[in-house]
Amino acid sequence: MSVQLLPKKLKDLNAALIDQFLSCRIFSVNLCENLTAEDCQIQSMEDSSPIKWHLAHTTWAVEVFFLAHYVDEYTNFNDSYIQLFNSYYNGVGKQHLRRNRGLLSNPSFDEVIGYRKEIENRLIGFLNTHSLSVEQIDVLQLVIQHEKQHQELMMMDIKHAFFHNPLLKNINNKVNVKPPKLKPIHFIEYTPELTSIGVDQQSKNLKSDQTPYLFSFDNERPTHKVYVAPFKLADRLVSNEEYLEFINAAGYQNSFNWLSDGWAYINKNNLTCPMYWFQEDSKWFVYTLQGKQPLDLNQVVCHVSFYEAQAYATWRKMRLPTEFEWEFASHSNKCKQMIGKLWQWTSSSYSAYPGFKPYTGKVSEYNGKFMLNQYVLRGGCVVSPDNHIRNTYRNFYYPYQSWMFSSIRLAQDLL
Amino acid sequence: MSVQLLPKKLKDLNAALIDQFLSCRIFSVNLCENLTAEDCQIQSMEDSSPIKWHLAHTTWAVEVFFLAHYVDEYTNFNDSYIQLFNSYYNGVGKQHLRRNRGLLSNPSFDEVIGYRKEIENRLIGFLNTHSLSVEQIDVLQLVIQHEKQHQELMMMDIKHAFFHNPLLKNINNKVNVKPPKLKPIHFIEYTPELTSIGVDQQSKNLKSDQTPYLFSFDNERPTHKVYVAPFKLADRLVSNEEYLEFINAAGYQNSFNWLSDGWAYINKNNLTCPMYWFQEDSKWFVYTLQGKQPLDLNQVVCHVSFYEAQAYATWRKMRLPTEFEWEFASHSNKCKQMIGKLWQWTSSSYSAYPGFKPYTGKVSEYNGKFMLNQYVLRGGCVVSPDNHIRNTYRNFYYPYQSWMFSSIRLAQDLL
Amino acid sequence: MSVQLLPKKLKDLNAALIDQFLSCRIFSVNLCENLTAEDCQIQSMEDSSPIKWHLAHTTWAVEVFFLAHYVDEYTNFNDSYIQLFNSYYNGVGKQHLRRNRGLLSNPSFDEVIGYRKEIENRLIGFLNTHSLSVEQIDVLQLVIQHEKQHQELMMMDIKHAFFHNPLLKNINNKVNVKPPKLKPIHFIEYTPELTSIGVDQQSKNLKSDQTPYLFSFDNERPTHKVYVAPFKLADRLVSNEEYLEFINAAGYQNSFNWLSDGWAYINKNNLTCPMYWFQEDSKWFVYTLQGKQPLDLNQVVCHVSFYEAQAYATWRKMRLPTEFEWEFASHSNKCKQMIGKLWQWTSSSYSAYPGFKPYTGKVSEYNGKFMLNQYVLRGGCVVSPDNHIRNTYRNFYYPYQSWMFSSIRLAQDLL
Amino acid sequence: MSVQLLPKKLKDLNAALIDQFLSCRIFSVNLCENLTAEDCQIQSMEDSSPIKWHLAHTTWAVEVFFLAHYVDEYTNFNDSYIQLFNSYYNGVGKQHLRRNRGLLSNPSFDEVIGYRKEIENRLIGFLNTHSLSVEQIDVLQLVIQHEKQHQELMMMDIKHAFFHNPLLKNINNKVNVKPPKLKPIHFIEYTPELTSIGVDQQSKNLKSDQTPYLFSFDNERPTHKVYVAPFKLADRLVSNEEYLEFINAAGYQNSFNWLSDGWAYINKNNLTCPMYWFQEDSKWFVYTLQGKQPLDLNQVVCHVSFYEAQAYATWRKMRLPTEFEWEFASHSNKCKQMIGKLWQWTSSSYSAYPGFKPYTGKVSEYNGKFMLNQYVLRGGCVVSPDNHIRNTYRNFYYPYQSWMFSSIRLAQDLL
Repeated sequence: MSVQLLPKKLKDLNAALIDQFLSCRIFSVNLCENLTAEDCQIQSMEDSSPIKWHLAHTTWAVEVFFLAHYVDEYTNFNDSYIQLFNSYYNGVGKQHLRRNRGLLSNPSFDEVIGYRKEIENRLIGFLNTHSLSVEQIDVLQLVIQHEKQHQELMMMDIKHAFFHNPLLKNINNKVNVKPPKLKPIHFIEYTPELTSIGVDQQSKNLKSDQTPYLFSFDNERPTHKVYVAPFKLADRLVSNEEYLEFINAAGYQNSFNWLSDGWAYINKNNLTCPMYWFQEDSKWFVYTLQGKQPLDLNQVVCHVSFYEAQAYATWRKMRLPTEFEWEFASHSNKCKQMIGKLWQWTSSSYSAYPGFKPYTGKVSEYNGKFMLNQYVLRGGCVVSPDNHIRNTYRNFYYPYQSWMFSSIRLAQDLL
Repeated sequence: MSVQLLPKKLKDLNAALIDQFLSCRIFSVNLCENLTAEDCQIQSMEDSSPIKWHLAHTTWAVEVFFLAHYVDEYTNFNDSYIQLFNSYYNGVGKQHLRRNRGLLSNPSFDEVIGYRKEIENRLIGFLNTHSLSVEQIDVLQLVIQHEKQHQELMMMDIKHAFFHNPLLKNINNKVNVKPPKLKPIHFIEYTPELTSIGVDQQSKNLKSDQTPYLFSFDNERPTHKVYVAPFKLADRLVSNEEYLEFINAAGYQNSFNWLSDGWAYINKNNLTCPMYWFQEDSKWFVYTLQGKQPLDLNQVVCHVSFYEAQAYATWRKMRLPTEFEWEFASHSNKCKQMIGKLWQWTSSSYSAYPGFKPYTGKVSEYNGKFMLNQYVLRGGCVVSPDNHIRNTYRNFYYPYQSWMFSSIRLAQDLL
Repeated sequence: MSVQLLPKKLKDLNAALIDQFLSCRIFSVNLCENLTAEDCQIQSMEDSSPIKWHLAHTTWAVEVFFLAHYVDEYTNFNDSYIQLFNSYYNGVGKQHLRRNRGLLSNPSFDEVIGYRKEIENRLIGFLNTHSLSVEQIDVLQLVIQHEKQHQELMMMDIKHAFFHNPLLKNINNKVNVKPPKLKPIHFIEYTPELTSIGVDQQSKNLKSDQTPYLFSFDNERPTHKVYVAPFKLADRLVSNEEYLEFINAAGYQNSFNWLSDGWAYINKNNLTCPMYWFQEDSKWFVYTLQGKQPLDLNQVVCHVSFYEAQAYATWRKMRLPTEFEWEFASHSNKCKQMIGKLWQWTSSSYSAYPGFKPYTGKVSEYNGKFMLNQYVLRGGCVVSPDNHIRNTYRNFYYPYQSWMFSSIRLAQDLL
Repeated sequence: MSVQLLPKKLKDLNAALIDQFLSCRIFSVNLCENLTAEDCQIQSMEDSSPIKWHLAHTTWAVEVFFLAHYVDEYTNFNDSYIQLFNSYYNGVGKQHLRRNRGLLSNPSFDEVIGYRKEIENRLIGFLNTHSLSVEQIDVLQLVIQHEKQHQELMMMDIKHAFFHNPLLKNINNKVNVKPPKLKPIHFIEYTPELTSIGVDQQSKNLKSDQTPYLFSFDNERPTHKVYVAPFKLADRLVSNEEYLEFINAAGYQNSFNWLSDGWAYINKNNLTCPMYWFQEDSKWFVYTLQGKQPLDLNQVVCHVSFYEAQAYATWRKMRLPTEFEWEFASHSNKCKQMIGKLWQWTSSSYSAYPGFKPYTGKVSEYNGKFMLNQYVLRGGCVVSPDNHIRNTYRNFYYPYQSWMFSSIRLAQDLL
């Protein structure tokens, strides 16, 4: 569970919320410390956005979803921003064309930072003078969690953008720690039968003395019963070495490994390895947040699409787990690398849980309208912010996408 | 269940199989009785195929999957046909480009009929001289059921092709019977809890005296437990009148009715009504197998995509049933129009049942490789051949497609 | 000059016109003698049309441009044909979508033949009862010449369609005559200076006793002065052997041979040889009207695009002739293969001659609106009908196109 | 003629060249004075480039075409820049993908300025120590003129980019001067007959005391005779008021005004007015370098494509001039707005003059390979740099393009 320590005494609630809010906001800006204004301007594909746009959009969310709703006679910071930084909320109004986000040199990075500060001040001003209703706390939590999601997107997007520049620059200055030698995968057996999946409330214990405070998105709710047959789950993720065996065994050239759409996709796009892998003089390299690196066979494979994950599993005569198998297994500690290492593709199509209730109001479009054609990933990753991922968290991407930090965990039937 | 009366005495088995095979084969050719060779030549989109191609491909399946496999020292009827009439079986070899099927004026319709007769004779010759193994019976049943699937595709494809000719000709000469006035939809309550879905074997009772003989595809297998929460299901399909209310209420103009991909799709393609609907002088018409007809408000709505079905249900503040809800409900007789009227979209992504085993050998690609990005329809339709549809039958299409005879059945949670 | 023997005595004029008209009409139908109705149905690319459509469209032209205009109270044969068989005449009305011509299985081939006969009868009826004005004769000549243009298109289009069927069938049953061994190209010197290009009238001598009758299209008119500097022109067309030297010298892999657009085009489409050339076991073959043939090195190269023609000339350190150089040279007999062998690309962009007057009325769109982005070819080809090509005839295609019977004649400056 | 004052005494030649070079270089950087680094980063379409890229590419040209060629044992400033800032010179090597120029946040604007300074220093060092050959002077002149061409492109590209940002910012701070009321167009008569077009040398009088120094590109050479029939030319360009009459007369809705390709293009792209025009509350506005402005009816129409220019002329029952007519007329002073106001579309396809010799060496691809599918514009425009445009200057664009400062001058035949 995503756990936030919240005040034991209610009178400190708003101070704690301000603290939580500001630490989230600062973290976003800190992500840009090695980047120039030009770096924050570029957009390398329609699926991604400029860093500057993320900084503005997460501010827009605070303004539109909270301030404009709860502040009396609220005046927009800048009317044109309402359209410029709207991502996909038709209920809020028109949106600047997604693929043209990278063309918005105005407002400048500095102006966006100014926008951020003003909106932060407005929110803090409100929190200093109002006692929040449960609904208001819920919306505030949502916009904070929303910004955390965008913090991860910022790392995905800048990595993708820099990869399209032959200079292949470092993004952060961290040292790449060599992981210990991996042990062979061991399969853990689970016999769940009828089990409970999901959570019921966005926030619990909020006004009690009891910690922790718990958060969830609407798409994780409500809890419901699912029958899950006995299964086996790999105790770690697939390694680069194991994935390279698939490549070297002509795995990308054999249609029998692939689902029909995946086979068409990799052939149309001439794909023969995961995103960010490339060869020079027959040696494999990979682009990372620390720049170009020789492929480390001992690392977990990263940036695979659903198509690739499924093909790899098929080639191993295994399969991907369902999201229900994954969630059940995550409650015990028998498997490693479940939370916070790399996202793990499941075989589950992203759809509504029985009894699903989307958010109401302007945020109703947050999750529900994407429940088609996408597949669920579980577990979070190294660039997911702290206090953001939990066992019930459902991430979702189209099966062709691989610019998120995605990996493979194998599963098998338990006969 | 799809029921075929098979011989009580085993010695008559092959004669019965010949009979079953030939009646299926004749039915295909009879579907062309009102069509010219030119009609059978045309292909109006990449998703569809020419009638002539269907006639050849279903023959190819008999040759490649049965004769070439079981006849000693088999010689192909025509080596080039192996590629020309291969649909998507990479294991069999290369395929003529799908979108160019309509360019194959050679072989001619008459030559394809000649191909059909020769292959039929070869198969009958084999059946007259061999006692079949269970595997051989299974493959023979599969190619027969395969041809029945193509009989339905033939009706879908010729309708689509004729719609793209402004002359809007009749396809068959049947008289359009006016349906009785529909009663309001009534919702039936079901409380399944843990239930059994699917079937276990392709064929049962084959060599016993007991009828019926039962057939299923690999994707319907095996039986497995699914927890299904209480739900309500509409006792009939949505009518044209009801769907027109959605159109007239600007249902196609309000993004909140639509999933994100559906909204993008209908806007990109300027869709404002189901396929085959059109307006003249503000009156609605629909293209049918009997040519252009005024829209009959009392008929069931047909040729809707998943996007449209889902949007309609959302607009009614309801939802589509899962395929498990549908299958459970189909075993009682409380709902009407369940089997043989029109296909009914379910909210279930097409995926493998737990323990799914695809066919082995050349037919392994029959169903399994399509288990991605498509959604399940249940129940068959008026152009599905006799003895073809059953409660467990899973049809599947992409959510944008609507040239199959698809409709909408509403569902709701039962609180 | 395109010469038609016309009557010395005026009273025989109409009889002669009927004769000319019918012999043209019969020739079109005779082109189909080896084709099935299915062959006549198919359309292999947007640039081409089905044979059946050509048969109907040339009839449509007689009906729309002549009968509907000159017959009192004319009733269309079939109102829907006016749209179905309109090629690109916005002034006549809407057109059936060009790329969907191959979907018109209705009307059938037989019905189109019926349409042809009825329109022919109507025209003959008119000619038998009316003395034609000069304008009427001009329009009649135009629709005859129009049909001749489509006769050539029919051969181009059916060849293209059959090439996309792996069976690679023969189209006609003529025997391929082996040409005599070619002599090396010799360059002829010309010093035209100020010269006269084009013609002035559509028809001359029409009502006089003097033959011949002369025809020209509006785009060949009027005569005008052009200054042409001294130049040298190859006395024959480029051979397959010579073109193969270009291929073997990696001519398709060296950007310096190509204009920028051509280089982009051949790379995008992976072109490495002329249309209809292909290799099997390292040997070159070519698809011809007589089916698949080994490449005859002694034949003239055919089916090259402007891009290819220009690249070849550049590689030889030469250039293509302008259309004015070509026309000037054509008036003497010093060069061979000028008329009736293969079309010859010129470097001239297709544009209006000074003082150009497009046709008036419904045929005004015949030529003028295409005077952009296309390049002029001169000289006609083996599938051009008799009495159709002349020195001033200007054919035009986009520089990427090569399904017409096009070849290369080299030119050089004369210093 | 483009006239540069050059030294009367030869010993001062290099100092004068340094002066000419540096003043050109400074002008480029000065164009950015109102722009941020982010503004200089963005690329709004494949046809355009980021400002930063222009600054780097014009430096690359000095390095690759001059320094790398003439400096002994030259070391590249940065090897990766050779590919990054190569526009289209296959002879120099591979090029960074054109449409991805906007993704190069590295090198930063400041780094590009550093690149510029270092290359300038290297060139000046060379000029201070070497006596230049004629070839070296020619190459130096070429890279200076090349940079001037890019100075105009910078204004075109930043205007296009800013137009795609709803904030519609000012680019420069100049005041929009209201032009005097236009007089009706008057047509000037010309009777050239055989005339001389083009120039013969890149530079004349270079080592003599006589000024001026004359420059021309290879595509303006050599002089050659052209027969030009008598014609009439409008004494000024078409105004916004006149063009608006065309719009209001449904000029964009009537196919008869348009060439076939133009009609297809405006319909596919839903064009109903020139680029940068838009309506708000039924009033016309236009985006200019000074931001959004009400449409000034008294200004010359700008940013029209060839398609639009031709359609307008056709609608007026006139035509565009040929480039030969334009050049002939430009030598007298009877027409206004010939040089330096706005580019004027001619009806001439961009092609080689008889006897055309492209540059040799790495700059051979400068002009020649684009001589296809494009049309010639003459006369320069307000954002063309000083000392850059001359009577013989041939600009060229595809007929769909309109982001350059292009206008319309009408012509007619003189009978």
